[in-house]
Amino acid sequence: MTSDRSAEIRVSEIFGPTIQGEGVLIGLPTVFVRTGGCDYRCSWCDSLHAVDSRYRDEWKAMSTEDVWQEVVRLSGGEPLMVSLSGGNPAIQPLGELIDRGHRQGYRFALETQGSVARDWFADLDVLVLSPKPPSSAMETDWQAFDACLRVSEGRPQTVLKIVVFDEADYAYARAAAARYPQLPVYLQPGNHTPPPPDDDDAAIDIDGIMERMLWLVAKVTEDRWFEARVLPQLHVLLWGNKRGV
Amino acid sequence: MTSDRSAEIRVSEIFGPTIQGEGVLIGLPTVFVRTGGCDYRCSWCDSLHAVDSRYRDEWKAMSTEDVWQEVVRLSGGEPLMVSLSGGNPAIQPLGELIDRGHRQGYRFALETQGSVARDWFADLDVLVLSPKPPSSAMETDWQAFDACLRVSEGRPQTVLKIVVFDEADYAYARAAAARYPQLPVYLQPGNHTPPPPDDDDAAIDIDGIMERMLWLVAKVTEDRWFEARVLPQLHVLLWGNKRGV
Ligand code: SF4
Ligand code: SF4
Repeated sequence: MTSDRSAEIRVSEIFGPTIQGEGVLIGLPTVFVRTGGCDYRCSWCDSLHAVDSRYRDEWKAMSTEDVWQEVVRLSGGEPLMVSLSGGNPAIQPLGELIDRGHRQGYRFALETQGSVARDWFADLDVLVLSPKPPSSAMETDWQAFDACLRVSEGRPQTVLKIVVFDEADYAYARAAAARYPQLPVYLQPGNHTPPPPDDDDAAIDIDGIMERMLWLVAKVTEDRWFEARVLPQLHVLLWGNKRGV
Repeated sequence: MTSDRSAEIRVSEIFGPTIQGEGVLIGLPTVFVRTGGCDYRCSWCDSLHAVDSRYRDEWKAMSTEDVWQEVVRLSGGEPLMVSLSGGNPAIQPLGELIDRGHRQGYRFALETQGSVARDWFADLDVLVLSPKPPSSAMETDWQAFDACLRVSEGRPQTVLKIVVFDEADYAYARAAAARYPQLPVYLQPGNHTPPPPDDDDAAIDIDGIMERMLWLVAKVTEDRWFEARVLPQLHVLLWGNKRGV
């Protein structure tokens, strides 16, 4: 995939540093590079501004060097964790950015649904594979998913993160975890009031999210699924649906 | 310290499984063994029912075997993480409990202020050292603290967790982190409305805690302290000050 190396990266937004709100790196100061475009269209996608082609005008084709300089500017040149998200960042040519950052001591985490495998996954520090449960209305291609694990060769710290809205999602999460017993599992109560792309201040049902969180905690403890970690989206609790914080 | 081995454990409460609300194990299903008694008396202690001798009548002297059987009962015999907290659990004879649980595949995390070192710290899976900042009105004995690290011999996963209320606490946290550059640091915004021991439903100022959380996130990002993780007490957000959840 050396052809990726000189390609441009389609960027929806670059922001931070702020703390990571989800999953294995929760609480860690992070700069976020959110790429534009996704091969999925989840019913409850909370990043539509980085997915829907209606917002394509807001995306910028940037060179690796320009993305890198923006990360350096935001972090004041002090190495930190960079989160590559989307959309699906796996469909962007990010290998060169990772190499560039590593040379300066930065670290890279990538979150993807696992539909597209890239050889540069092996260069990541953290790989968050987030297969989408039935409520998303997407179908998981487990062979593509397996390929993501294969290309990463066990080099990055790799975890499963699964959004759970209901019983069917929970059953899906159990099955996914059983399929990959070697991967730590993070469960995340779904946000049924995701942000409309145009409205930072749209109402968000925090109580509803918290209720789903409590339900999920009750589920894992009743089922004695003691390896699963249950974490809400901290940034949603802190900032609601606002972008860029 | 073999004399510890047959001694009784002073227990304030044993409860769970519920998720760990703080620090490095946040989100993980856990059974909590909270011991009674503490050599500190922090101004904002949120576990006074396990500290103040007025509540001593509620504490129970239990044999290791009885504590262990209660952990097994609560977890249905399915191995999980056991959190040893207090009060200061370091002043209780817990080495035998850890051995007992390890033989069945259970894991043990201990949280202590670091004022008392025990040889059995080396047998823990996770050691959370939580030195108390100036707002606690306690004085840190760094030699005792160093001894905790020495006895644990780098065997458990060891982290620093520091509660931060204000600028002075933040400066203390920075200094502590600089003293132990090898230890991951977790910062936690303080709860200035800790529960009175007798009242589960006492008002709690969630907005105030969240405001302190945002302030703390701003501090670490402005100071480019990118290794520090900032996490609120999730159980307080979920359940307020209620005990036993
Ligand atoms: S995979 Fe992620 S970015 Fe793509 S549509 Fe689904 S939730 Fe949105
Ligand atoms: S060390 Fe912990 S348990 Fe002891 S008084 Fe301080 S906060 Fe309370």
